[in-house]
Amino acid sequence: MQTLGQQARQASTILASASTLVKNNALFAIYSALESQQQDILKANQIDVQQGIAQNLDAALLDRLELTPARFEAMLAGLKDVISLTDPIGEITDLAYRPSGIQLGKMRVPLGVVGMIYESRPNVTLEAASLALKSGNAIILRGGSEALHSNQAIAQAIKEGLKTSGLSEYCVQVVNTTDRAAVGQLITLSEYVDVIVPRGGKGLIERITREATIPVIKHLDGNCHVFVEAQADFSKALPIALNAKTHRYGVCNAMETLLVDEKVAADFLPQIAALYAEKNVELRGCPVTQQILGEACIAATTEDWATEYLAPILAIKVVTGMDEAIQHINHYGSHHTDAIITENFSLARQFLARVDSSSVVVNASTRFADGFEYGLGAEIGISTDKIHARGPVGLEGLTSQKWIVLGDGQIRQ
Amino acid sequence: MQTLGQQARQASTILASASTLVKNNALFAIYSALESQQQDILKANQIDVQQGIAQNLDAALLDRLELTPARFEAMLAGLKDVISLTDPIGEITDLAYRPSGIQLGKMRVPLGVVGMIYESRPNVTLEAASLALKSGNAIILRGGSEALHSNQAIAQAIKEGLKTSGLSEYCVQVVNTTDRAAVGQLITLSEYVDVIVPRGGKGLIERITREATIPVIKHLDGNCHVFVEAQADFSKALPIALNAKTHRYGVCNAMETLLVDEKVAADFLPQIAALYAEKNVELRGCPVTQQILGEACIAATTEDWATEYLAPILAIKVVTGMDEAIQHINHYGSHHTDAIITENFSLARQFLARVDSSSVVVNASTRFADGFEYGLGAEIGISTDKIHARGPVGLEGLTSQKWIVLGDGQIRQ
Repeated sequence: MQTLGQQARQASTILASASTLVKNNALFAIYSALESQQQDILKANQIDVQQGIAQNLDAALLDRLELTPARFEAMLAGLKDVISLTDPIGEITDLAYRPSGIQLGKMRVPLGVVGMIYESRPNVTLEAASLALKSGNAIILRGGSEALHSNQAIAQAIKEGLKTSGLSEYCVQVVNTTDRAAVGQLITLSEYVDVIVPRGGKGLIERITREATIPVIKHLDGNCHVFVEAQADFSKALPIALNAKTHRYGVCNAMETLLVDEKVAADFLPQIAALYAEKNVELRGCPVTQQILGEACIAATTEDWATEYLAPILAIKVVTGMDEAIQHINHYGSHHTDAIITENFSLARQFLARVDSSSVVVNASTRFADGFEYGLGAEIGISTDKIHARGPVGLEGLTSQKWIVLGDGQIRQ
Repeated sequence: MQTLGQQARQASTILASASTLVKNNALFAIYSALESQQQDILKANQIDVQQGIAQNLDAALLDRLELTPARFEAMLAGLKDVISLTDPIGEITDLAYRPSGIQLGKMRVPLGVVGMIYESRPNVTLEAASLALKSGNAIILRGGSEALHSNQAIAQAIKEGLKTSGLSEYCVQVVNTTDRAAVGQLITLSEYVDVIVPRGGKGLIERITREATIPVIKHLDGNCHVFVEAQADFSKALPIALNAKTHRYGVCNAMETLLVDEKVAADFLPQIAALYAEKNVELRGCPVTQQILGEACIAATTEDWATEYLAPILAIKVVTGMDEAIQHINHYGSHHTDAIITENFSLARQFLARVDSSSVVVNASTRFADGFEYGLGAEIGISTDKIHARGPVGLEGLTSQKWIVLGDGQIRQ
């Protein structure tokens, strides 16, 4: 791992000042290599899938692991998107004169070396590698053992693409061991790695955060809320509450708890419950909700308020108004994405200011909290921290800024 | 410390949505309290100074510790500057429509609770407290034991100011123990503290970085360079090289190594050496420098290239050109502030892009790398890291941004 780190650091210093053309050419060369090696990669993936079946991996994991031809196409399309993104590196902003006569601005620069730790989905290998390259960072990728053959095959194509384009093959390195100790080594390689991006289960991310000696860009879970305020327009509230819960269940920006103002609960809850019933969503409500919905709703416990179900289950709480809703969200939520549905201007403004989440939404679905929807092109992760990057993290989250000073001989008085 | 943390967290949630008027009123009330308690504060400071003399503290430390009436005035003037700064909190930027119809932007928010650890200079207590308040953050301050009475007296005035203005006194808390264990507790209080800002000697900062479980905004040292390139205009290079070294010696943005292109070394070095001689600056040079300057210069060792002297000592190296200069700076430097003096447009551009420092300067003194000179109003620290904040850290470095989404009922397709 020490060697990988040294190679990555060395590659990163050259990559940091590579031109946009060189980086895009490398990404195009990777595209071609992937295209021509599609069959090998899909075969390698089948080995992983067969091993997974033999090892009784659960169905969701197997599904994420599998690379179908359609998914392979989507992976290539994602790479094209990254190629078409504006290169953030070297961008100079805020260049303005100071009273001393110096001209001061900020220039965007890469972080250096990114360490990525992830599970199952092999397309993450390409996604992360392409975002790192485009932002001028070297990357060390440590995928899950269940996807080893797939990741190695994709890595092989990336390596060939890099070689063709003249960039160092060490710009992207995939750890070729399933040794668990490799993770521990990677997250303490502070001399060579500048940031760790983990993607996976809460257990993995908690362990990494605890043990890393390098800054970590992470989110632990997505316990998202929709608050249907008393002045909500039901023609917006109903489709949003339905979409936020049922559009996809296993995603971090799905709603897990619905909050409803007591003034409209008796009217709103039966209407939304009917829609959820069609989708077989299990409802767990507070006593007031249960009273309104009767048998359609079982009792929620305190634990429900803090749970990310990632499943067709929804917690519902009737609240006395804005203050209780905001307190509930800031207390039980995971600071990921929370929405209010209201036509009241002042309450919308208050909700935006007071909810302490990485995305705060008025009159739209929580499902929009996503790198593609936000126009970042792709995302390397989602951060629920406040330091450095927050919310969906795209190219910009993999960069820093340095100050630049231009003068005509100015000295400090 | 646990209690201090809880109180700070609680205070921070209210402070986060306090209006600009409320925060400025609190700062004005603190100003008045400090003014009326000036004599008590200066008396408390004299106790610290007398104890310091009795304990044989070194002269530089005693100097930093002392609050003269003039320094007290400067401290109050600094507070007025912070009051007049634009409130960064709530600022919404980049609000633009996405193809889905949602309107996406970013809103600036406080980090939450800042933990500040510092040594000797009691005016840091007020500086840090005022920057934290203005940016909507609660702060826990842990000053050095040598300044305990001074810090407590200043804290008393701050507390009264907060009370008068109606904000919680727990917005600013000064740890009133000199117990060394308090630092260890503060830097691991991850539940209640969001960021640690240490200011002090390298040993202190290294220890904090190693042991903290909370992100740290830090710089270890300032080993800054000026590179006099072959096409330098000597009428700029001479005053800048003089100013960068001799304007103040004990500061992190002072030049510690002068690099000179071999093509102009024989011409430039004798001229600048004559200026340094007037200021009694000791010169330590590479063999070529020694050959040119003769007895005016002793031999530099490899250690000199890596040393932050903070004294009237300067290392000098003659280099073969840009590449060697940049390699030297990126290898031996501390990524703080480095300057090139040149009239060559392309080389200036290259230097800006390739030098990996928090401030990169063309044709001006390194001494400009400072929160006041950069227009930040004041600085809570200087960061040589790339994560979150880099270079002088003012109000903005104490904030984060959250995404805001405004819609008319949009759902994800």
